[in-house]
Amino acid sequence: MKIIIAGAGAMGSRFGLMLHQAHNDVILIDGWQDHLDHINRDGLIADFNGQEIVAKIPAYHQDHANEIDFDADLIIVFTKAMQLDHMMASIQNMIGDQTKILCLLNGLGHEDTLEKYVSKDHILLGNTMWTAGLTGPGKAKLFGDGYLELQSLSTTGKAAADKVIDVLNGAKLNAKYSEHILSSIYRKACVNGTMNGLCTILDSNMADLGATAPIDDIVNSIVNEFAAVAKHEGVELDLDQVLAQIKSCYDRETIGLHYPSMYQDLITNQRLTEIDYINGAIARKGQKYGVATPYCSFLTQLIHCKEELLGAK
Amino acid sequence: MKIIIAGAGAMGSRFGLMLHQAHNDVILIDGWQDHLDHINRDGLIADFNGQEIVAKIPAYHQDHANEIDFDADLIIVFTKAMQLDHMMASIQNMIGDQTKILCLLNGLGHEDTLEKYVSKDHILLGNTMWTAGLTGPGKAKLFGDGYLELQSLSTTGKAAADKVIDVLNGAKLNAKYSEHILSSIYRKACVNGTMNGLCTILDSNMADLGATAPIDDIVNSIVNEFAAVAKHEGVELDLDQVLAQIKSCYDRETIGLHYPSMYQDLITNQRLTEIDYINGAIARKGQKYGVATPYCSFLTQLIHCKEELLGAK
Repeated sequence: MKIIIAGAGAMGSRFGLMLHQAHNDVILIDGWQDHLDHINRDGLIADFNGQEIVAKIPAYHQDHANEIDFDADLIIVFTKAMQLDHMMASIQNMIGDQTKILCLLNGLGHEDTLEKYVSKDHILLGNTMWTAGLTGPGKAKLFGDGYLELQSLSTTGKAAADKVIDVLNGAKLNAKYSEHILSSIYRKACVNGTMNGLCTILDSNMADLGATAPIDDIVNSIVNEFAAVAKHEGVELDLDQVLAQIKSCYDRETIGLHYPSMYQDLITNQRLTEIDYINGAIARKGQKYGVATPYCSFLTQLIHCKEELLGAK
Repeated sequence: MKIIIAGAGAMGSRFGLMLHQAHNDVILIDGWQDHLDHINRDGLIADFNGQEIVAKIPAYHQDHANEIDFDADLIIVFTKAMQLDHMMASIQNMIGDQTKILCLLNGLGHEDTLEKYVSKDHILLGNTMWTAGLTGPGKAKLFGDGYLELQSLSTTGKAAADKVIDVLNGAKLNAKYSEHILSSIYRKACVNGTMNGLCTILDSNMADLGATAPIDDIVNSIVNEFAAVAKHEGVELDLDQVLAQIKSCYDRETIGLHYPSMYQDLITNQRLTEIDYINGAIARKGQKYGVATPYCSFLTQLIHCKEELLGAK
């Protein structure tokens, strides 16, 4: 299958590498020139569960994507949320009548952006539990196991989705079709919508945050806003399950001592956050559906203040 | 007049000193032993607009206040908000039938605490624009001019209030009676209810906070919650006036580069904050009156989280 990885960061590199190893025709598109130069010169070098793999995958800058001649069967988008629109505009020339778009971004509402470029029956929404890291330009560290679920946004897209699943499974990416992808996406968004913003604004890891007295009330308020909005999109969140999943983040023996990705983006690296696609998306959707979302709105505003105060870019 | 200063920090020292200089019979009560020892040994030493004044004012620890024989005509309470209840319990033996309590604490809802000890007609609520600082135990720095307003909580207390005003003015404290003390208190609480919590949680001075894009929306949301609660207490806040007063805090030429007192308490000195008597009071009153106050609730919770994370005491 001819596959574009649109956004070749850590996760894009994992999917690109595994699909390339499975003999698909893969190209990488990204905006980080140094990363692309390394890949084109030395190959994408991965520490893959302890084994070094070098994959010669063509890598292009998105600003020159319109010069590429590549009729993509599948585009897997893996950009930062706020870069999705620009990426889609950059690679428009490679989107044909049959091209499917698989969106594996964190956060909510990306389908609205994608529908500016393709119709619903070309869009596959997904949710992945794979992890990945970059250790430098052109260098990925890929450990552990994972899986992904995906669903076609239209019933007519199911057959195409199954084909994509076959290709992903051919690359051992453990994909399966889901009839409830929005539920999975909302559940994950609830975890991100509490841990990310709160740890960032309070300068805390998840275990210490979880040990404070007000945390349960705060988490309840935020998750209830997610649930109220989700209901308007046909998703019934199982609140007990979601709250249990959030509480598991507090465990010092597992991931509790970690700082979430938003903390690393903003506090560690002074980069803009994805808050507009997590709590900010709930605030926007809440306005659309007439649902009050003050906790999500306030948290989004506070993170935006902090971005400005730290001069994030 | 026989006057107890209950809480002899910076502002209590100012009022105690000026009332003592005007030949009232003043005693100081506080919980800071070192401060009390200095005052009892060397006197309260003040840099009073550039002139050194030493005032021999008896100073007592609140834990031994029940041993003091002093029939107070007036008790001016100047504790931290969260210490008021304990202070009132400590000095109960000196509260007689005629004793008036003048409350000049920042924040809201102190009358509820005071009414546990005296009836409404003994309570004077006030709001002061005096400033003061302590430079060490027993040492005050008192510069500039100020004034205060006060009001009796009951109509029958007006005559007694006028007597107190005479005594205060005899000490050049520029007191006057107000028919709208709650309006003044609410206006000041709006400034504290925005600048204090937000600068603390965002680790920012007022000017930088005021320069962020979301600040106007955040301030509007918070002030509207204060206004909605105030309305239930018969106070009509002039929103334009309040918002203008808040915006004046952003001015780099005047006070914009300052960090509010809550920031200094929590971030600089790891002390517990008065948030429960500012935004937290609005949240409690909102619940009582059936008014939604999510911004005040969330900000209160965030500050409490931060107190725990910093081990504040």
